[in-house]
Amino acid sequence: MKRGVLIVLSGPSGVGKGTVRKALFEEPDIDFTYSISMTTRSPRSGEIDGEDYFFVSREIFEQNIQDDNMLEYAEYVGNYYGTPKSFIDQTLASGHDVFLEIDVQGALQVKEKMPEGAYIFLTPPDLEALKARLVGRGTDAPDVIERRVGAATSEIRMMANYDYAVVNDEVALAVRRIKDIVKVERLRVNRVLPEYIEMIEELEK
Amino acid sequence: MKRGVLIVLSGPSGVGKGTVRKALFEEPDIDFTYSISMTTRSPRSGEIDGEDYFFVSREIFEQNIQDDNMLEYAEYVGNYYGTPKSFIDQTLASGHDVFLEIDVQGALQVKEKMPEGAYIFLTPPDLEALKARLVGRGTDAPDVIERRVGAATSEIRMMANYDYAVVNDEVALAVRRIKDIVKVERLRVNRVLPEYIEMIEELEK
Repeated sequence: MKRGVLIVLSGPSGVGKGTVRKALFEEPDIDFTYSISMTTRSPRSGEIDGEDYFFVSREIFEQNIQDDNMLEYAEYVGNYYGTPKSFIDQTLASGHDVFLEIDVQGALQVKEKMPEGAYIFLTPPDLEALKARLVGRGTDAPDVIERRVGAATSEIRMMANYDYAVVNDEVALAVRRIKDIVKVERLRVNRVLPEYIEMIEELEK
Repeated sequence: MKRGVLIVLSGPSGVGKGTVRKALFEEPDIDFTYSISMTTRSPRSGEIDGEDYFFVSREIFEQNIQDDNMLEYAEYVGNYYGTPKSFIDQTLASGHDVFLEIDVQGALQVKEKMPEGAYIFLTPPDLEALKARLVGRGTDAPDVIERRVGAATSEIRMMANYDYAVVNDEVALAVRRIKDIVKVERLRVNRVLPEYIEMIEELEK
């Protein structure tokens, strides 16, 4: 069984990760499994366990941390949120690609534990455009915007930790680029070499 | 000016490198510069200097070797053949992609000097198919074929030195995969990061 590819989409806040991810999953020829997060918060109306989140108790979450099963996690307003490794491992082992959309801090934590993934950094067309977009929201004060641009600058410095930089100039173009990346990742020697080694061993019998 | 990508196509003898290269260069949307070899042999009728080869004297070729300007070279029947670095360097610096089709030994030599290239290994659908293809030529004795398969086996072991493995099951599919690889190589962080660092420096002024 050929192992699936772990695809990690990350990037500065406000760059449009969620929009690109949604558009990607609407593509007819995509067969990615979305990485389901684990949380200790209560399900909201209509949320399904094992689909929207894995809803667990605080005890179980902390057990997962101790068992080194959390690729990354954080605590917000008294609740844990994180990415369980076992679900991703099992999905990849079954030959399916896993897609993870995550902030920059989370992506770096995931990369430490699963460096074999394809790490994609979604970038604004340029930083000025990011600034314009943040201003366009119309809800933030200028000093908040300045701070966000400063944060984005430092996040772009973090790009060096990624494999690919995809510009989000147009959602449809960004989606196309991500699809191309996944197609080409399957051709990378470190992913296919095990198959060929097997083939040679077969022939030399 | 954004630097071009060096694309190196290599693979076992008999796998169809030349056929794939020709089909690739017939594509309407391809703008690769073909790496021109240097040789000391005399031009044949119709061959043009600086197009088919750089035709040079033995003295000039040996001067190029001494000046470390040959990415790789070999001597066949009294004549030198090799890949001059300066031509590739200048073409990449002008923003154009360079395409180099070369045997496995040559590709490894080139990689030592230009590791930033995209190294593509063209593989037969499987080794049995390679064997069938070699037999299909009908011109070689069985022991010659066995020797070639043995050589191909060791060449496939060399695949580990490449970035991508492209199966030559159908020429049109192999061409498509190579085009996808080049498209995606342009998204790799190590190629685009310098641009972003420049952008940040601009914004922080």
